[in-house]
Amino acid sequence: MPSRIQEGHTRGFIVPIGGAEEKEGSPRILKRFVELCGGRRARIAVIPTASELPDTGSRYERYFREIGVGEVQAMPFYTRADCEHPEHIEVLERADGIFLTGGNQLRLSTTLGGTEVARILRRRNASGGHIAGTSAGAAFLPEHMIAFGDEGSTPRANMVTLAPGLGLSNRVMIDQHFRQRDRLGRLLTALAYNPFATGIGLDEDTAAFIDQNDAIEVVGSGALTIVDSSGIEYTSMDSAERTQPVSIIGAKLHVLVAGATFDLTTRVASPGPIALKRR
Amino acid sequence: MPSRIQEGHTRGFIVPIGGAEEKEGSPRILKRFVELCGGRRARIAVIPTASELPDTGSRYERYFREIGVGEVQAMPFYTRADCEHPEHIEVLERADGIFLTGGNQLRLSTTLGGTEVARILRRRNASGGHIAGTSAGAAFLPEHMIAFGDEGSTPRANMVTLAPGLGLSNRVMIDQHFRQRDRLGRLLTALAYNPFATGIGLDEDTAAFIDQNDAIEVVGSGALTIVDSSGIEYTSMDSAERTQPVSIIGAKLHVLVAGATFDLTTRVASPGPIALKRR
Repeated sequence: MPSRIQEGHTRGFIVPIGGAEEKEGSPRILKRFVELCGGRRARIAVIPTASELPDTGSRYERYFREIGVGEVQAMPFYTRADCEHPEHIEVLERADGIFLTGGNQLRLSTTLGGTEVARILRRRNASGGHIAGTSAGAAFLPEHMIAFGDEGSTPRANMVTLAPGLGLSNRVMIDQHFRQRDRLGRLLTALAYNPFATGIGLDEDTAAFIDQNDAIEVVGSGALTIVDSSGIEYTSMDSAERTQPVSIIGAKLHVLVAGATFDLTTRVASPGPIALKRR
Repeated sequence: MPSRIQEGHTRGFIVPIGGAEEKEGSPRILKRFVELCGGRRARIAVIPTASELPDTGSRYERYFREIGVGEVQAMPFYTRADCEHPEHIEVLERADGIFLTGGNQLRLSTTLGGTEVARILRRRNASGGHIAGTSAGAAFLPEHMIAFGDEGSTPRANMVTLAPGLGLSNRVMIDQHFRQRDRLGRLLTALAYNPFATGIGLDEDTAAFIDQNDAIEVVGSGALTIVDSSGIEYTSMDSAERTQPVSIIGAKLHVLVAGATFDLTTRVASPGPIALKRR
């Protein structure tokens, strides 16, 4: 579950990104994240644990420096023991923003899960630190993480494997490379197990900026697909055979592009900013 | 995530039972649950949703009456629409104890998930109501529910399917019919995804009474198997092929029988009551 918000604090942004975000040229998503974190004065920590490439951390250090960030540091979290080192923890404590790269989300959950790093990420977010993740890094952010699954737009009983994620929010389930890898079916399957969460399907180079009031703004060149499960009247998930298609009656779908918003509390989508009355 | 505990309240007990609990003769577990709820004056609501047998609710009404409970009522939650009826909700609001029967845990999550019934169960527990579940009812209680899986004691990468559960606790993952169906492998697999939770494997006719301080006492004729994941140094879950066995290094195991205790906060197991210093 998300850490308790401390008295006098507001939660930081949670920023899942669909993968393959633009990094040079016009890196809208990364720039927007840096602005949130304080612009040139921002201190950014990069967690490249999901990746198996040795230069992922240093590449992101470079991207963030090119945007003008003065203090950016890639964290060497390769083993569970690395995730208990006090000096690394201190860097995370001081960071304004923390960025999780892509790769394999199970490397994140198996390496960080249950360690001091996971606890600090949750506490930092609860006290105002902004946390972004791209691709595998996005999948890892919520309580219920899509670990892996099959392609296709029809939900089938066993097409998705869930695992516990970092737990910054349990209002959403997140999938990435959404249009590029035809993942509507596995997101619908994940929601059908227990229709309490909202599904967020992120295209590549597309991000959901989720603020402290659980309002989402879309940033980037693709679309965000929202699956609102609150109206689901029936699913056959409990009776379907493992590989069979599953009935889902009453889900609501929104496709939102840059500038559009969705309020996770009221479940209202809008093509522009959220009406002022709630804010 | 669990509902916030209200000022001045303590959480009620959470009581997962491994299935096939004794119901007539010497029903130790059911009796202990009824005592917790106030004995003869207890108001008990039974949720038979997991079961496909039409008489499951009325059978449990009879078992609880035989123990001496004056007010017991089986709730007709067959569809998601049933789970929004104000008069049913009112029964749950007034209940001292709520009992979820066995069957299929996906019937519970697909029918109750995201409805007013799920919200009331969480709120009642946070304000002192005791909630027990047997077999499928036990699996449904935590945040991360074991939906289904394969038998065997060696963990393999894809041998277990998790789904979001009711969310009364996210400190534990629960499996039932534990020794009878050889489920150590699937519990280890579930924990290896993200080693932050404690695994609770419940034999038949065996219950974990989890109090408001997250101290567990074992009740019943079988054993409770605790898998403490906090010392896990490494798992190969992120690199294992889907059907392959998975390495897990550093898990700690306890097998506990009636009267033994385990403290989920300190992770200390004891053959008797928990030492007084913490209570």
